[in-house]
Amino acid sequence: MKQDLVLNFLREENEHFLSGEEISKKLKVSRAAVWKEMQVLRRLGYEIEAQPHLGYRLVKIPDKLYADEISYKLPTQIIGKRIYSYETLDSTNDAAWKLGEEGVPEGVCILAEHQKKGRGRLGRAWASPKGKNILLSILVRPVLAPTDIAKITLMSAVSVIKTVRQITGKTLGIKWPNDILYKNKKVCGILTEMSAEADRVKFVIIGIGININADVSTLPPGSIALKEITGREVSRVEFVRQLFVEFEKDYLLLKKGKFEALAKDWEEFSATSGRRVVAHLLGRQVQGEAVGIDPDGALWIRKDNGLQEKITAGDVEHLR
Amino acid sequence: MKQDLVLNFLREENEHFLSGEEISKKLKVSRAAVWKEMQVLRRLGYEIEAQPHLGYRLVKIPDKLYADEISYKLPTQIIGKRIYSYETLDSTNDAAWKLGEEGVPEGVCILAEHQKKGRGRLGRAWASPKGKNILLSILVRPVLAPTDIAKITLMSAVSVIKTVRQITGKTLGIKWPNDILYKNKKVCGILTEMSAEADRVKFVIIGIGININADVSTLPPGSIALKEITGREVSRVEFVRQLFVEFEKDYLLLKKGKFEALAKDWEEFSATSGRRVVAHLLGRQVQGEAVGIDPDGALWIRKDNGLQEKITAGDVEHLR
Repeated sequence: MKQDLVLNFLREENEHFLSGEEISKKLKVSRAAVWKEMQVLRRLGYEIEAQPHLGYRLVKIPDKLYADEISYKLPTQIIGKRIYSYETLDSTNDAAWKLGEEGVPEGVCILAEHQKKGRGRLGRAWASPKGKNILLSILVRPVLAPTDIAKITLMSAVSVIKTVRQITGKTLGIKWPNDILYKNKKVCGILTEMSAEADRVKFVIIGIGININADVSTLPPGSIALKEITGREVSRVEFVRQLFVEFEKDYLLLKKGKFEALAKDWEEFSATSGRRVVAHLLGRQVQGEAVGIDPDGALWIRKDNGLQEKITAGDVEHLR
Repeated sequence: MKQDLVLNFLREENEHFLSGEEISKKLKVSRAAVWKEMQVLRRLGYEIEAQPHLGYRLVKIPDKLYADEISYKLPTQIIGKRIYSYETLDSTNDAAWKLGEEGVPEGVCILAEHQKKGRGRLGRAWASPKGKNILLSILVRPVLAPTDIAKITLMSAVSVIKTVRQITGKTLGIKWPNDILYKNKKVCGILTEMSAEADRVKFVIIGIGININADVSTLPPGSIALKEITGREVSRVEFVRQLFVEFEKDYLLLKKGKFEALAKDWEEFSATSGRRVVAHLLGRQVQGEAVGIDPDGALWIRKDNGLQEKITAGDVEHLR
């Protein structure tokens, strides 16, 4: 019950000792009760040193995506104000979808250490070893027509890349519409799903899977994790916190109708623009040069006959 | 258990008598059991005449939207191949949505005599007195991008108007995007909802509410029912069956990518095209002449400054 408070007291001491007596006074419980709370925290993976006469000291927080750890002094107004964190889910998008139908406010986030039925675009699977990467879904309720939905995916890709740059100093590339790559290897995938009327969105779920600390051998072929890119482990909690901050900034821009700013970021990060590509559509292919994105998030391809075609769905393959 | 079979035997006799003995032989049950099935049918509202030596005769079917009544020899391949019919539901769209999430095949239809939480566009209510009108939802799984969703609404409006014309000889008008009018009074509303990824639709629910036999006094202001337009009661079962046929024809066109044919129908039925209109959008208005619809289902308005603007969402008001 009180372990959240105990944890906050320890955090505020910044790795210095806090006496058991002081904690027991603050919480108005016995020192034995304080000791019990410490045991609870230790079982959750917190490393807590206890010294006679000195008290308790927080040595290390666990590498777990605990909701409480992510939301501690999180400087956002919408995104992540409510976080649900699970060991195992079928899919974070499915869990967020249920909450969306129950009417939760926007900004709610779902995290899982493991997904049993992780999904990617077009019904594909998203595989990720347990406890190593980030699997999360963010629910938003933008005032948008469903025709604008691609903007949300593009915006999310931009937010992820800004986060990676903040945390690792590396700039990844976006393959239209929703893959985030490092040297042509997949680091992150985004699955945007929505519940909508014909002319307004009810809610949107943005599912984001990011390879963080997983060994390449445990990932699907063609994938890579940040650990391999940077040569060191990355704090998943820190990453999620930064992602929520970046996502909120970009989402507020989108809400204000300032998609141009995001489109500019997107073009900067785009691994697709200027490339020779082939788009695999339903029943046909379009080959040519990717020349940029449309205000509605679609990709423009200049075909070899000089005509341009707007691609709103399908897979794009980079050629050469 | 056997009343469906009994009913079919009676139907096939076309209002002629069928002896109890014959029925009991066909079903391999006693004549007392046959009599019991007749009682069940009578309780459901079927009028069945019984004559000594002659047997039973179907005199009248009830004015109820029984699934079995609608699907009897229904000449469709997809739409209405599975029908769920209820006395009361919160909303036929909600019920269809749940089935959609469970993965039912396309063409499934939900009907209700009464809705407790009937919904229209943009969270508005849809009111309809019990047992007088048609409240139904059709679930489809088109291979479409969510940006194409408006096509489904337009197509559905076309199907409804064709049905009304078949049944009553009257041609109603469409107010973009989803109202069906007779002399500026509302006869039918369409609520299209979808579950989608950013670039593909998972399923679409088309909710259709049509005022059939309700007295105008029991309808919301500005509404009218077919009964008042034609001066006679309209068979709701016959209407639904014809609607499924028309809807399927139009839906197959849409599936084949032949939206132009539907757009032509839409223009023919449009009460909006050529009208002076004001479109109420989020936070602003666009006034001008409605000049037609776009291939994606949006409305083009030529403003007074000569520029055209494409309207994808919002309400349109006919002026003058």
